[in-house]
Order: sequence, then C-alpha cells, then structure tokens
Amino acid sequence: MTTVINKLVIIGVGLIGGSFALALRRVGKVKHIVGIGRSTQNLHAAIELQVIDEIATDPARALHQADMVFLGMPVAQTAHTLEQIAPYLQANTIITDAGSTKQDVIAAARHHLPMANRHHFVPGHPIAGAELSGVKAAQADLYHNKHVILTPLAETSIDAVKRVEQLWQACGASVSHMSADEHDRILAITSHLPHILAFTMMNHIRHSTPEPEQLLRFAGSGLRDFTRIAGSSPEMWRDICLANRETLIKQIDAYRDELLVLQKLLHEKDGEALQQTFMSARALRGDWLKP
Amino acid sequence: MTTVINKLVIIGVGLIGGSFALALRRVGKVKHIVGIGRSTQNLHAAIELQVIDEIATDPARALHQADMVFLGMPVAQTAHTLEQIAPYLQANTIITDAGSTKQDVIAAARHHLPMANRHHFVPGHPIAGAELSGVKAAQADLYHNKHVILTPLAETSIDAVKRVEQLWQACGASVSHMSADEHDRILAITSHLPHILAFTMMNHIRHSTPEPEQLLRFAGSGLRDFTRIAGSSPEMWRDICLANRETLIKQIDAYRDELLVLQKLLHEKDGEALQQTFMSARALRGDWLKP
Repeated sequence: MTTVINKLVIIGVGLIGGSFALALRRVGKVKHIVGIGRSTQNLHAAIELQVIDEIATDPARALHQADMVFLGMPVAQTAHTLEQIAPYLQANTIITDAGSTKQDVIAAARHHLPMANRHHFVPGHPIAGAELSGVKAAQADLYHNKHVILTPLAETSIDAVKRVEQLWQACGASVSHMSADEHDRILAITSHLPHILAFTMMNHIRHSTPEPEQLLRFAGSGLRDFTRIAGSSPEMWRDICLANRETLIKQIDAYRDELLVLQKLLHEKDGEALQQTFMSARALRGDWLKP
Repeated sequence: MTTVINKLVIIGVGLIGGSFALALRRVGKVKHIVGIGRSTQNLHAAIELQVIDEIATDPARALHQADMVFLGMPVAQTAHTLEQIAPYLQANTIITDAGSTKQDVIAAARHHLPMANRHHFVPGHPIAGAELSGVKAAQADLYHNKHVILTPLAETSIDAVKRVEQLWQACGASVSHMSADEHDRILAITSHLPHILAFTMMNHIRHSTPEPEQLLRFAGSGLRDFTRIAGSSPEMWRDICLANRETLIKQIDAYRDELLVLQKLLHEKDGEALQQTFMSARALRGDWLKP
C-alpha cells in the first residue's frame, strides 16, 4: 500500500489546511490538491503560493476519485460541511479533520455521514497553530515536532487511521490516539482555558480605565507574550467555546477557585505560602519544557 | 555638568543591575563600578563578565565618594538595605532603585534616609526584564526601547531626577514620571496580575490531574508563551505581591468578575456576544502592539 495521496481535497485552505498541504508536498506524499473555501481571494492566494493545484466550486467534481478529504475550516462549520459533501463522498475516500474540539465533530459525523463513510472518518487535531490565520500564514514546517491527536470512532477502520497517521508523521508530527471525550477535557485545560484567560485579560484592561491605551504604554513583554493567544481568531474561539462549553464552564469555576486560594494568601500576608505556590508553578513549567 | 558617573555602586548585581551596568559602560557613561551582593559566586561572575570592576564587602568603603548607588536587589530588601547603607551615604550621592513596586520603596526611604539623602533619592522602575535572573542573564540592550518610570518624592531635587533620567536615556530607554501611587496601580494591572494568572494557570494544571506531566505532553506553544512569566523568580514575586497586596486583591476580584461575565455567555450559549468579546480583546491588543 502506497501512502502517496493521488487526490487530496482540502476544504478550508487556511493556516492549518495550507500547512498540511505544504508539508505533504515537500515530502512528496501528495500528487494533486484541490481547494474549496469561502473566500475566493484566499483560494487564489493558495494557488499563487502553490499550496493547492486547483480551486473547486462543484463538490461533486471535487470529490470524484478523491483519496482523502481534509476539513480545515472553523470547527463549527463541520456539521454543515459534512452535510453538503455527504452525497458526493465515495465509500473509499478517507475523511479527516483538524478541529480543536472532537466530541462535536464526531456527533456531526454520526448525524451526517452514512456508516460506509464513517468507516473512513478519522477525527484529528494537530496541536499546532499560530494567532495568524489564512493561507498566507501557512508553513511547511508548522507540524514539525508537534503532537497530533487522533480520536477515531469505534467504527473507523484501522487502515484509515493508519493512513492518516502516516501522513501526519510525514509532516514531522508525532501521533497519539485517545477518546474524543478525553481529548476535549485535556484541551480545555491546556488550550481553551488559557485562551479565555488571555482574552479576558485584555478585556479587564479595557474595563479598568477610560484610556486603556495610556495604561498599555507601560506594559512590557510579559503582558505581550501572556496575551499572544488573544490575537487568535474570534470566530474560531467562539466555536471552540460553544463546542466545549460544559467542560469550559467547569474549568472557569476551578480556575476562579484557584485564584481565590491565592487571594487568601494575600489577605493573610502569607509570604512563605505565596513563594511556595510560585515555586510549584515554576517547577511544573520547568519540567514540562525541559529540553 | 557631565553625566559621566565616576563611581557607581550597584547593590544586587543581577539581571537588572547588571544590564544597567553593561548599558552604561557601552556608552561610556560610567568609569568605575563597585558591586555588592549576597552571592559571592554571582559577584565573581559579574567580575568575569566585566559587569563590575570591584567587589565590595565593606559598605563604608564602597560608598566613599560614590556618585550614585543603584539598588538592584529584590524589592522587599530595600528597607533593610537602606537602613544598612544610610550611615555611610554622602549627602551628594544619588540613590536610585529599580523595584517593581514604588510606594513601599518610598515608605522605606522615608523611614531610613535622612532628609539630606532623600533630596537625592530617585525611585525608578524599568519596565524590562526576563524570567531569568542573576548577572549571567544581564544584557547591554535590555533597556533599549523600553519604558522607565520615575516616581520622585516631593523632596527629591530636580537635578537628581535629571541625572537618573539621562542615564536611563543613555541605556536607550524612554523615561516617564508619575506618582508612586499611580505607578503601583498601573503595574498591578499590566504586570502583577498577569504574573499571578500565569502562576495560577500552572497550579491549576497541577491540581487538575494526578499526572500533570501527561496532560502537558499535549500542550502547545500557546500555553508555553502564556505561562512564560510563571518562570519568574518566586522570591521576587512574593515580594511584589506583598508590597502591592491591597491593589492586587482588588485586581483579582475584578478579574474574577470579568471571567464570570464570560462564563455567563457560555451558560447562555451566546455565540454572538462571545465573538464580540474576543474581537474587542484582540482589537485592543492589536492597537497596543501596532508597529
């Protein structure tokens, strides 16, 4: 079995889909790439940047003899997109996605894809990205040394999982498997909550003073890096928040409680406990990022 | 009046004091630098790196004919340090500091310095730094294009302020003046609160699971940058928290309320308001960092 894809259809040719295309091209794992998307301007840029070979407007033609469909649009559009392409999907076309939440994607697949297609549906999530969006931000090495999580359905065939896994590995990523439920819980903590906290930090500043710009003149690189992820796509993060809202509501509660514990130490002027708290935080981060 | 310092005494030769020394040396604004500090090993490194010319153990000798004393140790040690050096300070020696909080530094100066020395006391705070500490992290360009805030006392002489200002400008920084009270309020929002949030994020992860390392395997660059400041010195941040605790307690309340507003939008599944919230946050950040 060759792992070279003869025809790859990318729906949503942005940072994620575009980088997938560029990475596979570089290692010769794909022959022909068809792009579908909302923005004609972005698709033309994708052609110019040689990310895709062809722009498709007719899904029937695009999906004809496609080996693989890669869903790269914001996660909330997954259901609608699956509904639209379902009539034209061939039984042997592998379908995979890169959505930041997985339970909602699987629910959409269960609703819109017949069993024959679900055998070839491999939900995935590359833990990579940037606060930039659009195909112009795409990079061939975006997935290099990054993690990709696959959350296959019970009915997904082992072969389909293997092919998707091999492609991600060809992009330089390492691949893990877990349940969609576990994925969404982990990502709520490591990604979704921090995004919410960063967005909220900027809004806190905005509400602290009638002239937030004056206050920000005196902000340094600490705040800049802390809020880098607040530069992310509001649309994308609205969708992620809605898709994973129950877990996130709990996460916000837990984080607010954790802040209350620290505030109590301030009330009590407990310098020793404050230092210990900061040391534990720093130690965990140090272990995590240890080279 | 020349702005060249014949003898500069740096108490606490770490990232901040060491970078001040290196920057002034590079532009030829200082002739002789004496270092005082807790760690002999660090002071020897400072000599090796040519950050200082001489290690002093006797404050009387160190302060003899000093043009300027720069306080670079953690802010909580300011009072004790001022108490120790006060007997040896000459009336014309300028004293300045780099503490991250200013009201406590001024209270310490009022308590330990006689009026003659307070005439030459210029509290300052360079908005620059890194999560690293110690003289080995010092860089000559740390203050380049950074802000320095000076919060002179009512009794500080204009000449002393001007000399300190000129030195910071020689380091490449731009200098602003404001009251210590305003400084502490602004920095609580732009710096102290984000540090607390970053430390708290790591502790939240630590308390979320018995194996936080497993969870962090799937964390990406978003969390890494968001928590960069959680790599900062626990001792320094304990001191800053205690020095600015009343303002910080209020800031934590306000931030927790802001989180509650966002959580309410999740409860209500209000996608439009969520997106609007994220857009406002992103817009403010974009305006701030606009080149």
